[in-house]
Formats: sequence, C-alpha cells, structure tokens
Amino acid sequence: MSKAEKIDWLTKTYFSTNPTYRQLLEAYWNTDAKLQKLHDEFIENTLSNFYLPFAVAPNFLINGKFYTVPMVIEESSVVAAAGNAAKFWAQRGGFHTRVLGSRKNGQVHLNYRGERATLVRFFEQVKPRLLESVRVFSERMNKRGGGIIDIELVDKTAVLAQHYFLHCTFETADAMGANFINTCLEQFAQTLRQEAEHHGLESLGVVMSILSNYVPECVVYAEVSCPVSDLKVGTMNGPDFAQKFVRAVAIAQTETSRAVTHNKRIMNGIDAVILATGNDFRAIEAGAHAYASRSGSYTSLTQAKIQEDRFVFSLEIPMALGTVGGLTGLHPLVQVALAILENPNAQQLMQITAAVGLAQNFAAVRSLITTGIQNGHMKMHLNNILNQLQASEEEKNLAKAHFGRHSISHQSVQEFLEKQRSHA
Amino acid sequence: MSKAEKIDWLTKTYFSTNPTYRQLLEAYWNTDAKLQKLHDEFIENTLSNFYLPFAVAPNFLINGKFYTVPMVIEESSVVAAAGNAAKFWAQRGGFHTRVLGSRKNGQVHLNYRGERATLVRFFEQVKPRLLESVRVFSERMNKRGGGIIDIELVDKTAVLAQHYFLHCTFETADAMGANFINTCLEQFAQTLRQEAEHHGLESLGVVMSILSNYVPECVVYAEVSCPVSDLKVGTMNGPDFAQKFVRAVAIAQTETSRAVTHNKRIMNGIDAVILATGNDFRAIEAGAHAYASRSGSYTSLTQAKIQEDRFVFSLEIPMALGTVGGLTGLHPLVQVALAILENPNAQQLMQITAAVGLAQNFAAVRSLITTGIQNGHMKMHLNNILNQLQASEEEKNLAKAHFGRHSISHQSVQEFLEKQRSHA
Repeated sequence: MSKAEKIDWLTKTYFSTNPTYRQLLEAYWNTDAKLQKLHDEFIENTLSNFYLPFAVAPNFLINGKFYTVPMVIEESSVVAAAGNAAKFWAQRGGFHTRVLGSRKNGQVHLNYRGERATLVRFFEQVKPRLLESVRVFSERMNKRGGGIIDIELVDKTAVLAQHYFLHCTFETADAMGANFINTCLEQFAQTLRQEAEHHGLESLGVVMSILSNYVPECVVYAEVSCPVSDLKVGTMNGPDFAQKFVRAVAIAQTETSRAVTHNKRIMNGIDAVILATGNDFRAIEAGAHAYASRSGSYTSLTQAKIQEDRFVFSLEIPMALGTVGGLTGLHPLVQVALAILENPNAQQLMQITAAVGLAQNFAAVRSLITTGIQNGHMKMHLNNILNQLQASEEEKNLAKAHFGRHSISHQSVQEFLEKQRSHA
Repeated sequence: MSKAEKIDWLTKTYFSTNPTYRQLLEAYWNTDAKLQKLHDEFIENTLSNFYLPFAVAPNFLINGKFYTVPMVIEESSVVAAAGNAAKFWAQRGGFHTRVLGSRKNGQVHLNYRGERATLVRFFEQVKPRLLESVRVFSERMNKRGGGIIDIELVDKTAVLAQHYFLHCTFETADAMGANFINTCLEQFAQTLRQEAEHHGLESLGVVMSILSNYVPECVVYAEVSCPVSDLKVGTMNGPDFAQKFVRAVAIAQTETSRAVTHNKRIMNGIDAVILATGNDFRAIEAGAHAYASRSGSYTSLTQAKIQEDRFVFSLEIPMALGTVGGLTGLHPLVQVALAILENPNAQQLMQITAAVGLAQNFAAVRSLITTGIQNGHMKMHLNNILNQLQASEEEKNLAKAHFGRHSISHQSVQEFLEKQRSHA
C-alpha cells in the first residue's frame, strides 16, 4: 500500500468519528515534496512527521570554550533547567570533561560441548584467519583511525553450560560503528564455522553475533567544582547548600527508588542532545543504566563531595556516539545541530553531551533541595495547560500575571479561566 | 530574545559558512502559524520542529483483538520487524497480556538524628494529618478512580546514617500522575515540617520530595506461545529454532554485554509507542533497566522456555503510562495515535506497548539466530544510504534490483553507484 492508501485505510478503520485526523496527518507533511520524501524513507510505513521541539540551551562553558547546545525533547522545563545550570557554572569555571575511553565491543556467542583446552588451541590457531577475513572492512576503518583492537575467547561455562564467546573490541573513530562492528562479527562467525568444519570441531556451534551497547570502555567524565562559599542559592548559604546537595546525591547512591529518577534527570539532558545529533538514545539509555547497576545495586551515575572547602560534582557515563554515518548525514536538522556545536568529532560530542547531563542533574537536585520541583515545573508547564484549555491570548496574559504569585495546578488554572470567562 | 532573534544570533554565530541552515530551520516550520505556535510553546527556546517518522505497524493480535500500532522512531527496520513479528504471532494465537499492578510511588527523604522510636511514634501521630493536608488534590483523583494508597516510614539508617523516608504509594487512573504525586509529596513534606516544629522534633529535616520512576508495582506482562512444531523458520525446523531461541535468551540472562543490547531491542519497540502516545521514554527506560538489574546482576527482561512441547516467550516490564494529561491532550498527532489504538485507557496502553516490546525482541532474536542481523538491517537501510549518496530515482531502482542479490554496505553501494555513473 502507498502512503495515501495506508491513510485511506486508517481513516476508514479508525477515524470514522474524527475525519479531521486525516487532514491532521497531512497537515504535518512538509510542503517541500522532496524533503518529505527523504523523511518518509527513513523507516518503513511512514505516514507523517512527529514533531519534537528543536531548541537550544546557551552558555555551556566546557573546557574553556562556550557552546550553544541543540536539544530535542518534548518535556517542558528541561531546556530552561539546562540553560540555567550552564549559566550558573559558567560563572564558576564551567564544565571540565574528558574521554576515559572510546572502545566499543561485540560478541560471537558459541555453544561448545568439548574440552576447554581444545577450543583454546583452536581459537589461537584460527585467530589470524578471523582477522584476515574482515580485512576488506577493517582497512577502510583503519584509514579513519579505527579498527579491530583484539579478539579474546571468554569461558562462561561456570554460569551457563557450554557457553563461550569471542569478545571483540573495536575503535570506530567518529562513527558510532554499529554496521562496521556487526559486519565484522558476522564475518568472524562465518569464518569460525568454516574453520571448525575444516578442523573437524563438530562440537562447536555459533549461537549469534552482535555488538553490545554495554560499553564500559567507552566512557566520558564531566565535572564542575567551586569553593563552597560560592554556592549561595536563594536563601541558602554555600556550606548549607553544598552539604544538602551532597546528602541528596548520597541518598541517590544508596536507594534505588531515588537513583532511578536521579539518573532519569541526567538522561533528560543527554537524550535531548542525542536526538538532536542523530544518535540512538535507546542504545545510550540501556548502556548507562546497566553501568549504574554494575556494583550489584542500581545507583547514581553522579557523585558529589566537599573536598578542602571545594564542592565537586561529577558524572561518569558510558556513551558510544557518532558524528558521521547513520542518521547524522541524512537528517537535515541533525546537520544544523552539529553546525551549532561547531561540527564536533565523536569524542567532543561525548564531552558536550556529558556536560549537559551533569548540568541537568545539578538543576534537578538544586530544585529538589531548595524550592521543590513542582513550582518551577508548573510555571514552565503553565503555557501547556493554557493551550490545553484553549485560552485566548488575553486570558494567557492574565493567567501569567496571576500565577506569578499563585500556585499552579491543572485545577487552579481551570478555575481561574472559568472565573475569567464567567466575568466576561 | 524572540524566536527570530535567536535564529538571527545563531546564523551570525554558527552558520556563517552555511547560510542555508537558517532557511532549513524555517523550512521545518508548519505553514499553519497557530499549529506552529502550539508546538513552539511545548518547551523553552524552541527554534523549529525536529521530525521523527510517524509510522504504523499493523496486525497486532492482542488478547483476541487486532490493533494497528503507531510508532515514532528514527531507526530503520524497527517498524518492519514489529509488523513481521506481529503477523507471525497473529497466525499462532497472538499476544496475551495482563497488568500485574498499577501502583506508582514517591518518597519524602528525611534526615533524622534522634531515636528511632520517637520518629515512629511521631509518624503514626501525624499520618492522618499528612493525608488530610492533600485532600484538596486527592479528592479530584479519587473521582477518577485513583488516590493515595498508603504512606509508610522506611528506616534506611543501616545503609546511610540518619536516612529515613516516607514511601508513599498512589493509584493515578489514566494519568501518568507525575504532577499529582509530586504535589502530594511536597505537601506531605510541608505538613511534616510544620508538625515537627509543633512537636518540637528539631532533629528532623526534610531533604527532598519526589516521585520515583522505579515502579516495581506498576508492571505489565506479555506472552506468546505455540507448539514447538509450529515454529519452522526459514530452513530451521521448529524444535531446532525453539532450542536455539531459548539458548539465545539464556545467554541474555547470564551475560550483561548481551543483556543490554537484548533489552535495548525490547525498548526500540516500547519507546516508539511511548513517543507516539505522548509519554516520557526517559522515565520508562530508567525504570525498566533498573528492574532488569534488581537481582543484583543486569539481566534480560524477557524469558523463553519449552514446556510440554510448547514454546513460551514472555516479557515482564514496569511501565507507568498515561492516556490523559501531559502531552497526550496537547500534541495533535498523539491524539491521532491514540485514535488509531481506539483510545485505550492507561492499562490497555501498557499491554499494547508491552506486546510491541515482546514482538520487537522476538524479531531481533529470530534474526540473530537465523540470518544474522546485518542482512535485513542493511536492506532496510539501503534507501538511507542511497539518499545519502544522492542517488537518482533511476539509480535507486537499479540499486534495489542489484542488492536483492548482493550484500549491502555503505562501501558496496558507493562502488555500485560509481560504476553506474562512470557508465552513464
């Protein structure tokens, strides 16, 4: 079925009581047919464009250089919080970031019923052939500064009978590298099968070959710090604020119910940059949260401490990003986002993204330990509530003046509008 | 600064070598100024609309009823995989789903230096007043079938000195409930402070109050099953396929590097439905991955087994979704998405979303243990590569015919096009 036929079918099947939904799907098409076709072809069965707001958070001082950060997110108050935290820290030396590692990995999972020593010997014999078999792919990656780092044989039979795997590590330069890694792994698997047959190793089978989004060797670190005395926030003095902040992070480090939402508010910032730059947020989410649980209990990805009268707040997070390949070269607004970031390479993008995550977390914890979260959040959300209640421009202005001094909830806004309307 | 002024500033600051980027930002505006204004006001500092493809995956048979599922995702092959898996299982009884619980929770974190017994007595005394203090908010929620379930005092001093918290549980009907929960929690905190002062309990302080996205009591279950003999896939017979599938899931249950990507490919499907229906994917991601690590090691969210000659594949995942409130009533395409789903309530949406997650995971594991992932993925990705290389329609048709029989990589497509062009 063509796009038009699919929409016909949906209209007949689901929109009988809302025929305007058909026009709505079409109202979101771009008027430039060529641009629309490009977006239609990103995935399968496309009907329209789902709009997510494309915004910017200015004033990010990272390693001595100012950045304006593009963010794509539907949640109100995230971009404002990022901008506020960036401004706060720009006056205190800014963000300091570094890449701790950039290695990606993937596995060829095996099922092996024989003697361990036989498999080890076989692996050592065929390893050069495995590497040789992917040379056509890896040469291209070598030119860009990446390639295959190593292949190791891992014995997991203590945990799962007959389970061994090849653990393969890669550098992928400025590409996220998924296609390169998966292509190599599938070739390793095929070569391994052929060699096993050749060596008469019938007890060896390949279960599957696939990259891992768990990248504990592809990690970025971001930090802010300042004298405790420089931390006066609202009515709180520096030492009180710093102590309460450190306490709040300690709670996120010891209590899962807190850690999850604490980390969620790191990811609010990180995913917004990831979306804007054409990377895959599911991959980063999965890897980051698994990393948060690596000690055996799920814990905060950020750390806070007071050290010699300095407040130090930091984030360490795994993150395999790309600035070439995939959607980055394809989505025109990703090109714009990368231009706003002055066309970073993958490692620079990791650092900018981590700084935004740390800023977001700082803003969240600051709200929580001072005014609470609802006050600011509802102020940001006021417009959305007013739009939902179909307030006129005049009503919006009245409401904004009124709710500068009164607490905002869906109910209170509704009551305010009803009162206005009954007076009118 | 207005939107236009912000774009002026960006153009001057970052687009000097690419002045077309300004037009590009504007090319993504909707021509309906009112609709554009609505989207501009979702968040702060908005410049344009970031397009994500809005697509549908048909043929989802869930508890005996067919659904067409709206999905918003940038990654190629996810929607196709969902549709294929849905069709496969529709011929085998479809998805069976149920909600195991729908309780949400939040905490008021305390810092208490006194005797435990004093705090316990104090809490029991003030608990009715805490509940009374939020009656104005909870009455409205009661009418919709939700409300406050309980408040418990939890002692965490064994893990962190002086740390207690109020663990508050809620039902929020068809709303995700974040505003309701946070408003109640902040009121609990305020009432608690007042009561502590009133009782002279100076050793009690409130650190923060916030809902948790860790929702182990808000969980949905989805399952597919069929006789092993009905599982012939490609050249593999049913028993071989079932055994290899169960083995692949067992590996994801025991090895973190596999579990992360295994779960990522559940979330590919889940996040796509969450985005389309105006829910918050960061919240679901954080909660789901923390749940995956609850045993002390990060593991697969799906289970597979062969039981009395039946293959059974299931997913259990925490998921606090809403079908009213937040963005659901605000984003016009969310309204369309909910209409395509025949306007489900929150519990129905949880079940549909879980079915899509299970379908996605089935499709991923099926590819991995049969043809490998690259073959199908690159076929889906071929269009994107051709667009990136600015292939004409004629070149695209030639390429599609050629790569039906040849293996696809960025390089091979590039070489193919170069050959075509040198002949032309």
